[in-house]
Amino acid sequence: MSGSIRRAFLADLTPGQRVLDTETSKYLITVLRLSKNDEVSFFNGQGSRAHARILEPHRTKTTVHIEASTFSDPTPPTLHLCCALPKGDRAEWIIEKCSELGVSSIRWISCDRSQNPKKDHTKRLERWTKIAREAARQSHNDWVPTLHATTSLQETCDIHSNHTRIVLDTSNAPSAVNQSTDLSKAYAMLVGPEGGFTETERELLRTAGWRPMSLGASILRVETAAIVGVGFIRAITNETSKAC
Amino acid sequence: MSGSIRRAFLADLTPGQRVLDTETSKYLITVLRLSKNDEVSFFNGQGSRAHARILEPHRTKTTVHIEASTFSDPTPPTLHLCCALPKGDRAEWIIEKCSELGVSSIRWISCDRSQNPKKDHTKRLERWTKIAREAARQSHNDWVPTLHATTSLQETCDIHSNHTRIVLDTSNAPSAVNQSTDLSKAYAMLVGPEGGFTETERELLRTAGWRPMSLGASILRVETAAIVGVGFIRAITNETSKAC
Repeated sequence: MSGSIRRAFLADLTPGQRVLDTETSKYLITVLRLSKNDEVSFFNGQGSRAHARILEPHRTKTTVHIEASTFSDPTPPTLHLCCALPKGDRAEWIIEKCSELGVSSIRWISCDRSQNPKKDHTKRLERWTKIAREAARQSHNDWVPTLHATTSLQETCDIHSNHTRIVLDTSNAPSAVNQSTDLSKAYAMLVGPEGGFTETERELLRTAGWRPMSLGASILRVETAAIVGVGFIRAITNETSKAC
Repeated sequence: MSGSIRRAFLADLTPGQRVLDTETSKYLITVLRLSKNDEVSFFNGQGSRAHARILEPHRTKTTVHIEASTFSDPTPPTLHLCCALPKGDRAEWIIEKCSELGVSSIRWISCDRSQNPKKDHTKRLERWTKIAREAARQSHNDWVPTLHATTSLQETCDIHSNHTRIVLDTSNAPSAVNQSTDLSKAYAMLVGPEGGFTETERELLRTAGWRPMSLGASILRVETAAIVGVGFIRAITNETSKAC
């Protein structure tokens, strides 16, 4: 519904004539079925977008002409999601949905009760990156979240020490709406593993100034809490930024 | 983290000794690995739960003793989700996540731009029902959402004429937080198809008193809007019900 120009990811938006790589050519010609002289809007996931036109369609080496790009800052607030890695494809859902919702970064955290906290996820990073770009493309976001390597809870605290720090918690935390009067422009939101944080971890988070927030009475899975939590902050800060 | 007693769905909670069916026996003995004299908490998805004890474990016909059940009303507010049916497994995600979040019912709506609006979904209903029960089990909800057959937009308007009616909309709608001052105990939330509602449908919804609500600037997929919208209403009404 947002205009008929198709969107595609392209890391390098240097203006001028260009032969695209196989993956991008395939997407434009085979998936989108674009033809000679059709228009396409490229975005680089770092805030820039550029208008382009197909000069020579080809399944593996399409030639395009790219115009000068325009840059947009991310829509405030900056929101960093720090989340225990759930099992199976649930991590992919977090990446897809939170990319739609426009988070700035996603960081998996290793906790005492994490699933495979020390597993090497570099092989999955390529697939996760594609999912994030595709979700940003569909949602017309020009920013793709940065996907970080797994980090310990202590490192996560250090990294986000200057942000408004929220930890999702079901245990007698103030409910979410209470927090809406104290909104800053940069948040970090922490979602713990299925088994919850240990008492030692809770103490670490309290000391580091993470404020607990509840999303209601239900016990939510990691990915549900992450998506609803991010969506909630986006919805209430959207209003705040309008009012300012 | 909520006690060590395992939960399982059982439609009939009549107290006394009982031989369970194959599916429930398999779940208790093969999946949960329960043994003789182990305890289990059954819920019927209609607000009742009953404590039980394994008398004779068996893979296909386990005998249990069921105690008298207790009944709880659903946690307010009542929230009915009316949603365009998305493609593939995205419908299953809506059912799973909204069951975790404790919606009262889920109704697929047929719109002019729906995917397969007239397709018969009775074959998928059995799988959807299992997903809803499993999500309610995990979330410790004693109520499982009612899953309705696909309904036209006009019928949906008629069915929910006594509820606070919210339609999720990205086009210049008031943002979500504005609505938080006007909360009732029974909501219907409408989520349109990927292509949006047609102008005729929008007029029908306006006339029928559905109020548009925005969840922020991003263009969200149907399942993302549904889950974030339901989560948002749960989070803000959770606070309201505490304050009353």
